Amino acid sequence: MSFFRYLLFPLFLIPAAQAQQLLLGFDAESSAAQRALEAEFDSQLSASELDEWLRVLSREPHHVGSAAGRAVVDFVAERFREWGYAVEIAEYQVLFPSPRIRELELIAPDYYQATLSEDSLEADPSTFRTNGLLPPYNAFSVDGEVEGELVFVNYGTPADYEVLDRYGISVEGKIAIARYGGSWRGIKPKLAGEKGAIGTIIYSDPADDGYGAGDTYPDGPYKHESGVQRGSVMDMPTYPGDVLTPFVGATAEAVRLAREDAPTITEIPVLPISYRDALPLLAAIGGEVVPPQWRGGLPITYHLGPGPARVRMNLAFNWDMVPAYNVIARMAGSEYPDQWIIRGNHHDGWNHGAADPISGLVSLMAEAKALAALAASGQGPKRSVVYAAWDSEEQGLIGSTEWVEHYAAELDQRAVAYINTDGNSRGFVNIGGSHVLEKMINEVMNDVTDPQTGVSVGERRRARIEVTGSDAARAEVNNRADLRISPLGSGSDYSPFLQHLGIASLNIGFGGEGGGGSYHTMYDTYEHYTTWRDPGLVYGVTLSQVAGRAALRLANAPRLPFEFTGLADNIGLYVGELEELAENMREQTESENARIDSGVYELALDPTRSLGPPLRKPEVPHFNFAPLRNALDELSQAAAAYAAIAENGSAASERDNVLLYTSERELTRDDGLPGRPWFTHHIYAPGFYTGYGVKTIPGVREAIEERQYELVEEEIYTAAEVISGMAARVRELSQ
Amino acid sequence: MSFFRYLLFPLFLIPAAQAQQLLLGFDAESSAAQRALEAEFDSQLSASELDEWLRVLSREPHHVGSAAGRAVVDFVAERFREWGYAVEIAEYQVLFPSPRIRELELIAPDYYQATLSEDSLEADPSTFRTNGLLPPYNAFSVDGEVEGELVFVNYGTPADYEVLDRYGISVEGKIAIARYGGSWRGIKPKLAGEKGAIGTIIYSDPADDGYGAGDTYPDGPYKHESGVQRGSVMDMPTYPGDVLTPFVGATAEAVRLAREDAPTITEIPVLPISYRDALPLLAAIGGEVVPPQWRGGLPITYHLGPGPARVRMNLAFNWDMVPAYNVIARMAGSEYPDQWIIRGNHHDGWNHGAADPISGLVSLMAEAKALAALAASGQGPKRSVVYAAWDSEEQGLIGSTEWVEHYAAELDQRAVAYINTDGNSRGFVNIGGSHVLEKMINEVMNDVTDPQTGVSVGERRRARIEVTGSDAARAEVNNRADLRISPLGSGSDYSPFLQHLGIASLNIGFGGEGGGGSYHTMYDTYEHYTTWRDPGLVYGVTLSQVAGRAALRLANAPRLPFEFTGLADNIGLYVGELEELAENMREQTESENARIDSGVYELALDPTRSLGPPLRKPEVPHFNFAPLRNALDELSQAAAAYAAIAENGSAASERDNVLLYTSERELTRDDGLPGRPWFTHHIYAPGFYTGYGVKTIPGVREAIEERQYELVEEEIYTAAEVISGMAARVRELSQ
Repeated sequence: MSFFRYLLFPLFLIPAAQAQQLLLGFDAESSAAQRALEAEFDSQLSASELDEWLRVLSREPHHVGSAAGRAVVDFVAERFREWGYAVEIAEYQVLFPSPRIRELELIAPDYYQATLSEDSLEADPSTFRTNGLLPPYNAFSVDGEVEGELVFVNYGTPADYEVLDRYGISVEGKIAIARYGGSWRGIKPKLAGEKGAIGTIIYSDPADDGYGAGDTYPDGPYKHESGVQRGSVMDMPTYPGDVLTPFVGATAEAVRLAREDAPTITEIPVLPISYRDALPLLAAIGGEVVPPQWRGGLPITYHLGPGPARVRMNLAFNWDMVPAYNVIARMAGSEYPDQWIIRGNHHDGWNHGAADPISGLVSLMAEAKALAALAASGQGPKRSVVYAAWDSEEQGLIGSTEWVEHYAAELDQRAVAYINTDGNSRGFVNIGGSHVLEKMINEVMNDVTDPQTGVSVGERRRARIEVTGSDAARAEVNNRADLRISPLGSGSDYSPFLQHLGIASLNIGFGGEGGGGSYHTMYDTYEHYTTWRDPGLVYGVTLSQVAGRAALRLANAPRLPFEFTGLADNIGLYVGELEELAENMREQTESENARIDSGVYELALDPTRSLGPPLRKPEVPHFNFAPLRNALDELSQAAAAYAAIAENGSAASERDNVLLYTSERELTRDDGLPGRPWFTHHIYAPGFYTGYGVKTIPGVREAIEERQYELVEEEIYTAAEVISGMAARVRELSQ
Repeated sequence: MSFFRYLLFPLFLIPAAQAQQLLLGFDAESSAAQRALEAEFDSQLSASELDEWLRVLSREPHHVGSAAGRAVVDFVAERFREWGYAVEIAEYQVLFPSPRIRELELIAPDYYQATLSEDSLEADPSTFRTNGLLPPYNAFSVDGEVEGELVFVNYGTPADYEVLDRYGISVEGKIAIARYGGSWRGIKPKLAGEKGAIGTIIYSDPADDGYGAGDTYPDGPYKHESGVQRGSVMDMPTYPGDVLTPFVGATAEAVRLAREDAPTITEIPVLPISYRDALPLLAAIGGEVVPPQWRGGLPITYHLGPGPARVRMNLAFNWDMVPAYNVIARMAGSEYPDQWIIRGNHHDGWNHGAADPISGLVSLMAEAKALAALAASGQGPKRSVVYAAWDSEEQGLIGSTEWVEHYAAELDQRAVAYINTDGNSRGFVNIGGSHVLEKMINEVMNDVTDPQTGVSVGERRRARIEVTGSDAARAEVNNRADLRISPLGSGSDYSPFLQHLGIASLNIGFGGEGGGGSYHTMYDTYEHYTTWRDPGLVYGVTLSQVAGRAALRLANAPRLPFEFTGLADNIGLYVGELEELAENMREQTESENARIDSGVYELALDPTRSLGPPLRKPEVPHFNFAPLRNALDELSQAAAAYAAIAENGSAASERDNVLLYTSERELTRDDGLPGRPWFTHHIYAPGFYTGYGVKTIPGVREAIEERQYELVEEEIYTAAEVISGMAARVRELSQ
């Protein structure tokens, strides 16, 4: 029983108040015209059409290199052609490991052979369509047969290894078993390998992702006991994309690394398993009981090991070269055909891929169809719009990365912005992206109606923060004009655009009310999606409205809707965080070292157990943050000056529009981040030891976090330079 | 493997620095003599003797009214007689319900008959000695046969019912199933009954108390899957002790309430079960999935209900009148025989009761034996020492309460202090008590050596706080001369002394390193205790040293070691907490009501689920705390003036010693707390809705918490009066 009804509000109402407001980059007349155009755009969207596409495209498992994958490509390309797009299939030859041998057995103290397979369920017919199904595995695990004792490493993060150190436990020569969560999966074998482990097993703990989270499939959306999260473990924080062709498109003729030399393949074999398979393994581990925060949801006492549980694991892969097909569909702009708004979503799935990625892809298709209908009635975009359906995202953003590397020079000149979507769900709008687009996308959020409540999706998100946010978040939502959008780390196809080329990007999706446990399992089916995640694809249409508006406004605005006060405000936040990080680390290191030296640990710890004191850490010096503060002041002043121009509705010159859309490039440096030159953006990057999680001002932040103190001030200088460069760019705009 | 060895330090060293310090209440000469006496006292203590007594006394289940219980009484009384005490058996006739019918079955959607029994384990011979074993039940549950749907109420606290309200779920006409924890067990049926439930089931969730906490018995100390926590559910926050004789001793001739009129028997039947029995019940509950904080450790998705799980529960008890025997052993004081130091520990157990209570009782016996040896050599106490072994503590502090009520007039005049122990374990000293004794007991903690580390037990506790405490706790431990002792709620036999008569009390024990899951189960055996909790009873001896010193110093001090600056400091803390409580409640109520009124909940909550907004709450007025602040200032000034006298080592006149030890009476009022006149202490009380958990300045605190705003200022006035009365008493001492 619900205390208020599940209402579907009419989608096509324009609240009267909105109609009068100027859109960023538009004057009064063009704002009104744009809003009318958007209303017409909305009227083209059909939830039942999205639903039908979802059904068709998620019918079969369709990974890169598969026949079903090719069929998806052809279906999507054919639709784009029908709608009037110039379509090409951008093909790359990429290395694709698929499993040849997968064996895992507990050999002591008991014997258990892991099933490594997922159950077909009567309630979901899709789970019987297993032709071409990729079984559970981690792509870009190295081949290997290993045997050793198990050590439970919790999430396998750097902090977890510090805890193991305190217990005197090393994974050297052992096999680490880690649970999913706490970091991106690829970090787990990377760190375990760095620590000397000979293999890694990753499982989904039911406390995080199973019956602990909610009812399991098919009774609910959460992870079935046999469900396994597949996924890539390539070292994406070093570079994503084809492992053999960093920096260049993986065309047939590209120069390739030998596979042995590819630095993004793991050092040790790694295999994902279900919690059903994990139970006998974890139950067999002895040694110390885990600390309370490490407990999972299986009905056992968790222990750290090592042993007596011993496992043998044998993994071998087909290291095939396969074609990856990106569908690229262009609608030329009527006024600025060489300025491209790129809108992408991948099409490949680990299996049926209903949520991931088809739920996002069908929203993109609906947008493209609606845009084409507008164009057919003479209301085509002023700038070119490029729709892209990427292949092989799942193995490491491969299709998009290769395309971006292939066309880097052209994109550098022509790409105005990249708008990404991926899986979608019912709930609240989530937006990450470049903060030069924060104001524009806030206007969009305020103009799109939430289908369940009838208020704007922006207002619904504000309500969510009011109800569930921290006091600070509540205060911000009441005091800041715009909702703060998240900085982007990695995890989907925006990464090469934003972090390799410095193209302003957005990543858009809805979620929070469609429960999830199907991610990268065989249960990511049409039945699961339409029962639990977005019945009727209501939010599929809403996503089309948000992403479509973003694309249309970028395509048509007389002045590109870039804005810099939001950027300055967010960078100011990050600078403050860095100062606080250094300060807190300094205080904590000092006080913890003092405690260690004082001997209180020896007195306080249980002498019958092996937990020892923490290790002393190098104390944190004071850093000179002044260059960052000075650059930030420059940027804030320049942004304020430009804001007056941006808000007056005046059209921009072509020169100014080019200066606007290439402004994000100022935040990059050709030589990239320390140790990972592919990542050129100095404000946003995925964390080297978090994987997907973002690190803002990453050069500085990671140098502090990793206690590489000697790098910090150099990185502060570099970050200050890019911020100062952006300030100069903004001043140029105001002249 | 341990990073430092498990050392047993010599027990009888007196650090040189200590030897020079004056003991509170002693001058230089008498301090030295007292320390020498204490060294001699220590030398009488024998861990192997404690171990042997533990083995004998926990051999059989020995609850009140049982033959084995009588044998324990006789054994203890005989020892005291041997040692030279004047021993009497104080006998009371008390109502004791024991199970006649215990039936619980799930009748829909599946059938399951709860076993309601605990497994005997080959590894523990004691678990086969089940003669006279009380099966799992909750004493003072009413009889009843009920049938109804289950509702999962988490811990069954007031906050939990607020959450259920938001889901639109009522327990009216249902059977509530609650997990142990979060409040004292008796609160669960009390609240469920107030909310209209027809029955309550309480189980131990393995996340809190089972395999989630650590290895289960016999592989480790934690709760076996069949283990059930027995326990009383009488409404002790109304009054403890025999339910038929509130305020008077339950002598044979006492006037008794009819059982139907006894207000402390539950309104609805209640039964405790194991997690093995709980699993099929909880698995059968449907409805909404519980909020994340409500999840337990069973391998299921927890749901709120109500139903479809239906249970039938039938409980009937033998409502017998049985004799409760307190062993009272007196050693007359050589100088002030009418000033009594009372030292108690109960002797009855739910079953074998090795940890609870025998581990504490054997420490008390060792002290008594050592004290008798000193007396035999002409070094008897100057004040009388009364050792008490209480009966029927487990059913509701019955033996101690009846004795206190019986001898209230005498105790009011003669009782200097009451020192309580109960179960003990390996680890850190834990002290709760009257803050007039805070300084004295700190001196004791600094003088007793921790057997594992060789530093004082006080220093080890400080180290523990340094390592695990909050920043505030760390700061305090470094800046405050004394370790803060905890205020006392309820849960053991100090309650009638402190809270009914205003006798300054201490409760002393060690713990934190001996894992626990045996509490009130059949597994509280000699084998469990000596394997997991205190092998060799090393900390049993340390407990004797701490409690024995407290008794000896109170018995011999020329000036009773009461002190008031610690009291003022602690009361100051409580007054600050009350002001903050009101302030925070005011702000939170205002902002939450504003959110409710603004409609953000309707926007933020999932319209497909039943969770609704919270209910509006009455806004919190501003209260006049000035009377408390003024009284506190009075007390602080008086305490500071007296501190100079207390510290100079001068002996007190007999008048002053009487004024000192009766000072705690100033904190009581004959008419007691609102709604519960038995509780006369206005600084310390168990919470009406927490049970064991303390509420300081309870009249004021509970009026605020329960939003009985009209009571608050009256209670502030009363509390200020008692504090002011204490200040006057302290001034009298300084004259």
